Amino acid sequence: MQVVQGEQRSREADQPSSPVVRFDATRALALDCGINLAPFQIAYQAYGRLNATRSNAILICHALTGDQHVANVHPVTGKPGWWEAVVGPGKIVDTDRYFVICPNVVGACMGTTGPSSTNPATGEPWGLDFPVITIRDMVRAQAMLIDHLGIDSLFSVIGGSMGGMQVLQWASSYPERVFSAMPVACATRHSAQNIAFHEVGRQAVMADPDWRGGRYFSDGTNPRRGLSVARMAAHITYMSDVALHRKFGRRLQDRAVPTFSFDADFEVESYLRHQGSSFVERFDANSYLYLTRAMDYFDLAADHGGVLAEAFRGTRTRFCVVSFTSDWLFPTSDSRSIVHALNAGGARVSFAEIDTDKGHDAFLLDVPEYWDITRGFLESAAAARGLPVK
Amino acid sequence: MQVVQGEQRSREADQPSSPVVRFDATRALALDCGINLAPFQIAYQAYGRLNATRSNAILICHALTGDQHVANVHPVTGKPGWWEAVVGPGKIVDTDRYFVICPNVVGACMGTTGPSSTNPATGEPWGLDFPVITIRDMVRAQAMLIDHLGIDSLFSVIGGSMGGMQVLQWASSYPERVFSAMPVACATRHSAQNIAFHEVGRQAVMADPDWRGGRYFSDGTNPRRGLSVARMAAHITYMSDVALHRKFGRRLQDRAVPTFSFDADFEVESYLRHQGSSFVERFDANSYLYLTRAMDYFDLAADHGGVLAEAFRGTRTRFCVVSFTSDWLFPTSDSRSIVHALNAGGARVSFAEIDTDKGHDAFLLDVPEYWDITRGFLESAAAARGLPVK
Repeated sequence: MQVVQGEQRSREADQPSSPVVRFDATRALALDCGINLAPFQIAYQAYGRLNATRSNAILICHALTGDQHVANVHPVTGKPGWWEAVVGPGKIVDTDRYFVICPNVVGACMGTTGPSSTNPATGEPWGLDFPVITIRDMVRAQAMLIDHLGIDSLFSVIGGSMGGMQVLQWASSYPERVFSAMPVACATRHSAQNIAFHEVGRQAVMADPDWRGGRYFSDGTNPRRGLSVARMAAHITYMSDVALHRKFGRRLQDRAVPTFSFDADFEVESYLRHQGSSFVERFDANSYLYLTRAMDYFDLAADHGGVLAEAFRGTRTRFCVVSFTSDWLFPTSDSRSIVHALNAGGARVSFAEIDTDKGHDAFLLDVPEYWDITRGFLESAAAARGLPVK
Repeated sequence: MQVVQGEQRSREADQPSSPVVRFDATRALALDCGINLAPFQIAYQAYGRLNATRSNAILICHALTGDQHVANVHPVTGKPGWWEAVVGPGKIVDTDRYFVICPNVVGACMGTTGPSSTNPATGEPWGLDFPVITIRDMVRAQAMLIDHLGIDSLFSVIGGSMGGMQVLQWASSYPERVFSAMPVACATRHSAQNIAFHEVGRQAVMADPDWRGGRYFSDGTNPRRGLSVARMAAHITYMSDVALHRKFGRRLQDRAVPTFSFDADFEVESYLRHQGSSFVERFDANSYLYLTRAMDYFDLAADHGGVLAEAFRGTRTRFCVVSFTSDWLFPTSDSRSIVHALNAGGARVSFAEIDTDKGHDAFLLDVPEYWDITRGFLESAAAARGLPVK
């Protein structure tokens, strides 16, 4: 099963189970690092139909370890889409009414060009020869996809965590193309603590001899152990202390007494090991390096002379900013900074801090108040946009 | 320099630069796992002089990555002792007045028997053949040392973090031998989140091929990369988000613009890498596994039918419990649980939550209010003990 998943994942990098748009040398992606990436491709999933006035498109931006498979069975894991509970016919993001697009981000590993894609200059996977990309580069590429799809203005851009960073970048870079925006559980810049956790993850990957300086594909290896440790460390930060306690406490795993060994005595150990080993089968280690780096570099204020409000000056986009009380990776104070900057720029913004003990991961989970707010925000924006209301 | 430190560290395991007490087969250490460890040895440092009535001894219990070198130059790193600012002639823990003892814990790597010590049965380092030990085992061994030194009752037992766990275990196991106790920044049991972070560290070590199932000494290797990653992850948990922000923010390391690479662009990355690589030179990877495991297993209430107050029933020890506001590894709520249990048992206890942004590490740092409280508590206990006051 693991080998099959691994093979399927390798295929997805160049020949994904998703529609693909290819950009040739005449339409290079101008990266922040100064390199023009060409050719490159974007893989995406789309649900629903674009209306006659092309005014009902919703762009969903995925998080660090997410992908474009929002509302369909995942081609590698065989599991449901990561937001299938929310996106679909008659659901909160109603694909009977909206045309929903989710592109795989640049640097990822599910069909959009990234370090596991084949470098046309060598015929081998890019590996670390792939240029370091930024959140702005991801968004720039998405704008090219939206152009290609013939959409001038997006009805809404929605995303959590790294997806929320993309939402903020969209609203800042292309204010006239974003009618409404919902950044969830994110920040306009990565904190020192978050950079530190990412650096631990990268060092864990790079410490694995099977990483081979990023050339593991060519060498037929895979830094499973390093990436698994990286995932385990990150996963702790996605949950709250309270959620871990509620879920596992100090319960032992299928045993009555401790084994006095280094086995996974505690349920929480067993759970984390599983998180690590299953992640490795569906995700590329180099992509993990690139995407964490993009998040670390993200700093919207720095791009505007240190004044965050300048990033949103004069915006007419309608915002709904969401945070979760127990999220310690992107705490509410980060979201408040976004709201203050939007207020300073005179933007139309609503803000909800959702009371939950589910931690950062709440943005992916069934949190009724969060879902209600998403429904209400879209409903109100649809009315303002002149879309048929439910 | 690194090689020299590594060689010196290996020597310390059997032939430490500290006084050593050896226990032969007639005085085995009865471990919680059911094994009798014999022979074994305890290395310790002592400062000051025991008075005629043997009533002025203070036992200091070190933390996970600490050791017995409290107030002298460290034999491996050449750095000052870890609490030299507090312990010494005329200082807060005044070695002109008190006889201060700090033993290296069982399972550690600075001369007390642990996985890097030579297993007499094989002539090779114990490695993973060393039995898994508990906080209670550490304390049981310390009690044998205190017996050997001819001390019936300790004037005070002081320690932070894993050291604080030992303080609590001392007070519970040997109430009549502990006149006063100061558990700092600790808990009576390790939380699911803390177990999770420890498990990440252990997996990082064990993922390193140079770990060789724990037999790296015999193979002439050292799991530097794995232990370094473990230390980096742990180090983040020792600091507060605010402290990391104050210390590093998003400042770049000796450069004006990001390099668009995986170099340590940010100061916090460079700092963490240094923490990892310097730790490896002074600490043994297997000891890291054993000591983190001992902390995970620690659960004083579970040892008393689930009722924490039973752990301290009838105690006459004077307690001073200390926590730090920004410590998220052992938050104040953990210390409050200790205080409630002590109150329920009718104990004499004072409690201080110190306002600082230095995180868990505050127990090792210059925090004036913390030092004032330590001084005041010892002064008052000395008066009650009938020791000459200053």
